[in-house]
Formats: sequence, structure tokens, C-alpha cells
Amino acid sequence: MSKRDFLSTADLSRPELDDLLDLAARAKGKRPGQVLAGKTLGLLFFQPSLRTRVSFEVAMVQLGGHCINLSSDDLYELEPEEQAVMDGAAEEHVKDAARTLSRYVDALGIRSAARSGTWAHDRQELLLRSYAKYAGVPVLNLETSFEHPCQALADVLTMRENLVSLKGRRLTLQWCYHPEPKSLGPTHSILQAAAMMGMQVTLAHPLGFEVDAAVLDRSRKLAQEHGGSVQVSNDRQAAARGAEVLYARSWGCTKHWDDAEREAMVKRSLQDWRVDEALMASTQNALLMHPLPVRRNVAATDAVLDGPRSVIYEQAANRTHVQKALLMQLLK
Amino acid sequence: MSKRDFLSTADLSRPELDDLLDLAARAKGKRPGQVLAGKTLGLLFFQPSLRTRVSFEVAMVQLGGHCINLSSDDLYELEPEEQAVMDGAAEEHVKDAARTLSRYVDALGIRSAARSGTWAHDRQELLLRSYAKYAGVPVLNLETSFEHPCQALADVLTMRENLVSLKGRRLTLQWCYHPEPKSLGPTHSILQAAAMMGMQVTLAHPLGFEVDAAVLDRSRKLAQEHGGSVQVSNDRQAAARGAEVLYARSWGCTKHWDDAEREAMVKRSLQDWRVDEALMASTQNALLMHPLPVRRNVAATDAVLDGPRSVIYEQAANRTHVQKALLMQLLK
Amino acid sequence: MSKRDFLSTADLSRPELDDLLDLAARAKGKRPGQVLAGKTLGLLFFQPSLRTRVSFEVAMVQLGGHCINLSSDDLYELEPEEQAVMDGAAEEHVKDAARTLSRYVDALGIRSAARSGTWAHDRQELLLRSYAKYAGVPVLNLETSFEHPCQALADVLTMRENLVSLKGRRLTLQWCYHPEPKSLGPTHSILQAAAMMGMQVTLAHPLGFEVDAAVLDRSRKLAQEHGGSVQVSNDRQAAARGAEVLYARSWGCTKHWDDAEREAMVKRSLQDWRVDEALMASTQNALLMHPLPVRRNVAATDAVLDGPRSVIYEQAANRTHVQKALLMQLLK
Repeated sequence: MSKRDFLSTADLSRPELDDLLDLAARAKGKRPGQVLAGKTLGLLFFQPSLRTRVSFEVAMVQLGGHCINLSSDDLYELEPEEQAVMDGAAEEHVKDAARTLSRYVDALGIRSAARSGTWAHDRQELLLRSYAKYAGVPVLNLETSFEHPCQALADVLTMRENLVSLKGRRLTLQWCYHPEPKSLGPTHSILQAAAMMGMQVTLAHPLGFEVDAAVLDRSRKLAQEHGGSVQVSNDRQAAARGAEVLYARSWGCTKHWDDAEREAMVKRSLQDWRVDEALMASTQNALLMHPLPVRRNVAATDAVLDGPRSVIYEQAANRTHVQKALLMQLLK
Repeated sequence: MSKRDFLSTADLSRPELDDLLDLAARAKGKRPGQVLAGKTLGLLFFQPSLRTRVSFEVAMVQLGGHCINLSSDDLYELEPEEQAVMDGAAEEHVKDAARTLSRYVDALGIRSAARSGTWAHDRQELLLRSYAKYAGVPVLNLETSFEHPCQALADVLTMRENLVSLKGRRLTLQWCYHPEPKSLGPTHSILQAAAMMGMQVTLAHPLGFEVDAAVLDRSRKLAQEHGGSVQVSNDRQAAARGAEVLYARSWGCTKHWDDAEREAMVKRSLQDWRVDEALMASTQNALLMHPLPVRRNVAATDAVLDGPRSVIYEQAANRTHVQKALLMQLLK
Repeated sequence: MSKRDFLSTADLSRPELDDLLDLAARAKGKRPGQVLAGKTLGLLFFQPSLRTRVSFEVAMVQLGGHCINLSSDDLYELEPEEQAVMDGAAEEHVKDAARTLSRYVDALGIRSAARSGTWAHDRQELLLRSYAKYAGVPVLNLETSFEHPCQALADVLTMRENLVSLKGRRLTLQWCYHPEPKSLGPTHSILQAAAMMGMQVTLAHPLGFEVDAAVLDRSRKLAQEHGGSVQVSNDRQAAARGAEVLYARSWGCTKHWDDAEREAMVKRSLQDWRVDEALMASTQNALLMHPLPVRRNVAATDAVLDGPRSVIYEQAANRTHVQKALLMQLLK
């Protein structure tokens, strides 16, 4: 991990990822004790959060440590630009917030996933990267529009628990309809992590919902290196056929990233991109995954979400365990 | 208690209530130690809270445990309806939030006391009951429009401390004027709990401010079973006469529940329903109780709230102790 | 300290201040252990906070205690006036909130620094003083418009660490331009604390930005008593000359306190009141201090804030240590 931050799935080498998953599996089996007693993790949420917020706080409590939670409501506006003349709305520079917080806490987690410009702008993860640059303590990505690596760790642990070995296994990442514009974070992170595990990944989405070209390229290289593959399909039926894991999630259109109305118009005809029993029947008895929150009967039906192959709550539960492993590696 | 939830005063049998009060009294005398070390209680507040929030957090800290606090600001909107097609504003179904949180925390407390429809609708406590249905961990009612059972536990403990034996003692639940529409939660809960303690309860309110018929009926049955009684009076002076405890609180008009303007109009002539020294003088040197927050010099005068028979802060302080007892019973 | 509250720098005698700083220095060198185990500190923020919030929470965690954080979002409006007939917006009286919270927590910190009337009104710190009057536990000032004594403690510790002895040392408190109306809290507190340390203080500000007359008077008396002095200058260049510490901060205009537009108009011509390398060059190699948050390149330039004599992050870090000392003295 670069300077012991955890900003991207790509910050981990394959052996590091394996180690982390092994540690998480052990931490799940048996509580590691008060190994982080007296340690504090500062969490900054610029968007609402349920799983991330609660799973991190529980992880710290189980390790004897403590979370300090700040939300955008607790703070004034922060300036991210270098050398800015700060005569506008921002009351403090990110560098001062990051350096100050680094004197107080032992690590910092940042969620900043709002759409704030074009895709070319938001894909840079300016706020997160700024914190990582100036903080003297490890910084964790709690989700941006570009990556959500903690979710991917939980997802890979869940697949490992259910499939034992992941190499060569067929995973379909299935785009779903969602009435709101969504981030690409979970998709980008699981795509890269699955590729690194050597899975045969099919990325299924309508035309116009391509993932970031650099991420796709990196995923293909990772897959090649680890004996897997990454395919793209615009045919939802064909993509699901034979899948051993079907991972459903919606994501946004990078071309119309800063134009929600246009994106909504493009999506209007895509409401049949929904995971239902018919689609699941064409898979090879696939596990059903989704990072939550999920729009029931829109992105996926009650029948499949509550069905026997659904592991959506296992994914959520595993957030705590992978994060305990991550925190132990970064802070112990 | 049904599935070890605590949703209503009526979830407790009389022996269970006695046990809980005894445990609370012991926990008040001597701190029980770190009996809930490593345990977490998730608190979800959909309305502001001072006493409930702080008394639960202190209770967990004193038992070695930890509270995770979420407010509606931290969350997106949740869908409570079964089989909903979630293409509206709600980003997640209550069932998914409840099941996910159950993987993280050891118990969940929910405050959801907003008026959101007719009385027929709100008396069902849909959000709370949904959480209780789907959560795999104990769920606590932190106040709905229908019940506030934690307050009632503290109230009964306070009366026990001051009157020693409660059977046959005269308690008047006195409606007060308040400029805002209020819930029936505290009133319903103390009414049932006092009835179960065998007290002689007089429910005093203006015409039109009847409590829920099912609650009144249940209270009368409980009183009968335990040697007490429940009377209703529309005469504030007569109702106070001879009382040994005068419990003041405002509550809303169930007939105009979804029409705040109409309720305000009805209340306009009721501003003399205020507890003052003259009213207290007609009691049998009654204890003055109120669950707080109180509108001073509107619902009750400074003179009586700050007077020698006021136990309003004892009631508040006892929240911590009854809740420690409750948490020990549910989580130990 | 009056009743063991900490509301003002002036609550401390010189020996008490020395003791507190010595204890802070020791607590910084070596963690004092779980001396506040089971103790809780309630923090009430009526304005956003980063340093104060996080430094107090970390201080309590390091001492084995726990913070309970409430913000104005968690609460309804509170009534501060005695004998008010509460038929307006306020749902609870400050006295009831203070007395109730005192039954739950071991100390209370209050931030209430909003401009809510004329200077004659706001200088009375009504909300803070109300809490202090009614709370049964120690109350800490987390910043009002009038004082920010925790910041001053950290500032004095920082100067002591860098200059060893403070008596007779030359400190310039330098007004800076800021686009928003600011409080006088940090300025009033450091002015009095530096005077008590026997420093030679120069208060430099434009005409019209005089500090509170009573505070200036008290500071002059303290300085005289402890071998120091307090001068006022309206010439920013002259005031900086020969300074050993240059402490930059903006503050508001008490004459136009309740008229933000008028204050903005007055400030329009004062944008050259900015600390830059030229100004620093005229000092005697002065330390640069600022309590943060700072408007970079408006109040002070990047060059001086990031320069070798800047101790702005040391000031922030020392918040934790002085607050640990304070909490140990008040709560142990």
C-alpha cells in the first residue's frame, strides 16, 4: 500500500490481498482482542452511510479502539485547491484539516462520493487524494465515485467463503436499472479485485454505460497476470449464462456525468435491466451478490434478493471483518 | 418480552416488571461493572432526543459497552412497505437496513415518533414494528407516537422510590396545554405500567383528548387484575383532588391527528389546563412528575416544577438505571 | 476556578495556570493511563467544530473516558430566559437541559459562538453562563464570541515549549482581514493569558476593531501584576517590528456586531492586513501562530503559514494535551 494508505484495490499486490483475506478470516473466527486499545480512527462522511459507518465503528470497538465520527454537518466547507486565495465560502484548507487531524487520530477514513463536475474531474478523487497527500497518518477510502475498495475486500472474502477457490470461476458484474445517478466505486473496485484473483469476469451493461477505460485496462492486465480474463458484454441474457456469481449493481453514465437529466433520459428504456428469477435460472446456480443499498423490485426482485443463493447480508457482515484486518495491518 | 424485544410496556408481565425494577435499583446503588464489554447498541433517531440519547449512551458506557448513534441526517430514506417497487425516494428497504444492522450490533433502539398520517396509521408504529420483525437482535422502542416504555420504567422506579408501595396509590395523569401537537407515547406507557402496579389511576383530559381506546381497555384490565382502577375525568380540578402523584403531560388529539391547524384551534380554549400551585394544593401533597421536556409556565408553572414535591429530575436520572437493567437482561 | 467550571482564562490564577501547563507537559510526554475510566464528558456544539470536537474526544479516549456529542441538529431550541412563558419555539428551558444532563454526565462542554444580537448582548455569554449556573457538574467553555480559553491554554503551552520563559517576551496579536464576521473569543483569551504570563503584548488592529474594554482593562492589570505590559497599535508594520511571537487572527467589529453588511463595508479597505513574508521579516525571527481555521492567502500567506517559524499545527496538537490536564483536574 502506498504510504500505508488504502485508497484503491490496486494499492494491494496479490500476496498482500491474500494476507489481508486470511487475517480477516481469522479475525472473523475469533476476536483478536484489544490490539488497538487507545487508538482512534477519524471518519469523515460527506455523504450518508449505514454499512460503512457502522461496520467501521464496530470493527474499532471489537479491537478495543475508538471511532470519532464527523459528517459534513459538523464541518464548514473545505478548500481543496493548492495556493487558493481563500476569499470564498471555504473556511479551511484541506491541508490544514488533514494535518491537524493527523495530530489527533491514528488513521482517517474519508467518504466523498458526490458528483461535483465532469467524470474527468470526479475520477481524480481530489478530496480523498488531498487528504492522503497531507495527512501524516494512514488514509482509507470509504467510497468515492471511482472506487470503494473496502466493499471489494468484503466481496472477495464472501466469494472465497462460498466458492473456496476463485481462480477461473465465472463472475458476471451485471448493470441494473436505478432511478438515481449512481457512483462507479463498487464496480471499479470489485472488477479489479476479481481480476487479481484470476476470475473470469464478464462486465455486462447497456451501451453507454462503459466503465472507466483506465480501470478496464488495468483489470485486463491484472486478469492476464493471474490467469483470468475480463470480457465486456452488452447482452444481459448472454452475460448471465453460466455465471457462478452474479453481482448486481447500477452505475452511472460517465459521458453524461454532470447532466443528471440526460442520464435519466438515456436510462428510461433500460428498466428491463433487472435481476429476476428468469435471469438467475440461466446461470450455473450462481450466488447472487449486491453491495447494498438495493432498490428492491427495481434493480433486483424480492424473489432473488431473499432467495437461497443470495449472500447480500454475508457481504455486509464481512465488511466488519475485512476492516478489522485492514486496521490491524495499518495501525498495530 | 416477545422475542426479547422491548416495544411496549405491555411486553412485560408483572413479575418481569418487578424483576427489572429490582435490578435497576441495584444497578443504581452499585455499578454493575463491565458486563457488556465489547457489546454495541445501535441507536437510530428519526427525531431529536436529549434524555433518551444521553441516558442510553451513559448506560452502555457504565456497563463497558458502546453506543453507535445514527440520526436521520446520517441516513437516506427507508421503505417500510412489503413488496414495494422501490422506484421512489427510498434508497433502502427497512428489512435490509434491519438485517444488515443486526450483523453489526447487539441490539437496536429506534425513535420514530413523527406524525405521518392519521392516528389509525401512526398507532401501528410501522417503522418500529418493521425493524423488530426483520432484526435478528433485540429492538428497543425509544418512543413512538403510541408508546414510550423506557420512560414508563423510569417513572415507576421513581414512584417506588418515593412511595415505597404503589398498590392502591392515587395517580392522576393530567393533560396539559402545549402549543405544539404532541405524541401519546409517554401517556400510554405510564398508564399501562401504573395499572399493572395496581395503582388507582385517574386520567384527566379535556373532551376530545381521549387516549387510544385499545390502550385504555388494556389498562383497565391490567388494573383490575392487579387490584387497581382506571378512571377518566374531564374535570381537571376534580381529578387532582386527593392525588398522591400528579403526572403532567400534554398529548395530541387522535381525531385531528393529521390536521395540526384543527388541533391548534381545538386547544385554543384549553390554556387553563396548566399545573400550578392552586391545583397542587388540592392534592394530597402529591409528587409532581413530568417526563420532560416541559414548557415552563405553559404546561406547568416554575413554582411547581421547582417546588419541593417535584421529582422531574429524578425521573430523568432513573432513565439510565432502568435502561442499564433492561440492557443487562437483553444482552448479557 | 469558580465552582470548578472553566469558562474564562480569567478563572485561573497564575499558580493554577502554571500547574495546569506543567501537568499538560507531563501528559504530553507520557500518557497518564485510564484515570477517567467510566467518566463521560458531554459536548454540546451549537456551531461546527473540528479541532475542539476531535481534540476533546481524543483527550477523553486517552484517559479512558468517553465523550457524548450533541449538536444543535440533535436538539430542539432551548429557552435561556428566566421565568419565560414558553409558548414560542423553544421546547425546553436551558435549566432543565442543564440539570438533566448533569444527572448523566460528569462534565459538560458548550460551544455557542453565534452572533445573536448586539455586542452588549453577546458579550454576556448567556447560554454558556446559564448552563454553568444550572449544571451540577463542571462546565467548560468550548468557545463563545467572548472567550475561547482552551485555545489560549494550548497557545501558552506552545509558546512555553518554543521560548522556554515567557516573561518579558514580545508578543504581537495581529488583526487580519477575513471576509466573514469573526468572534473575539481566541483574541480575548490569549490576550489575558499572555498578560498573566508577564509578556509584553502589542495588540495591533485597525481603528474600529477595538477589543472589549473590560477585557483590555483586565489584561492591563494582569500584565502590570506579572511584570508585563499591554500596548495597543493601529499600525500593523510598527506593531510587528521586533516581535518574538506574531499571533495572527481576525476578529469582529463590536460596534457593528449585529450588522454584518456594515462590518463588511468597514473591512473592505483593510485587505492589506495580511501576514506575509515582508511583515515577518520585520520581526525578531518571530514564531508565527494562528488558532486555525485560517483563510490562506487572505489572513496570512502560504509562505508564512508553511514557513519554518510556523507553529500552527503544534498549537492545534497541544489542544489535546492541555485539555487532558484540564479534565484530570476537574474530574479525577
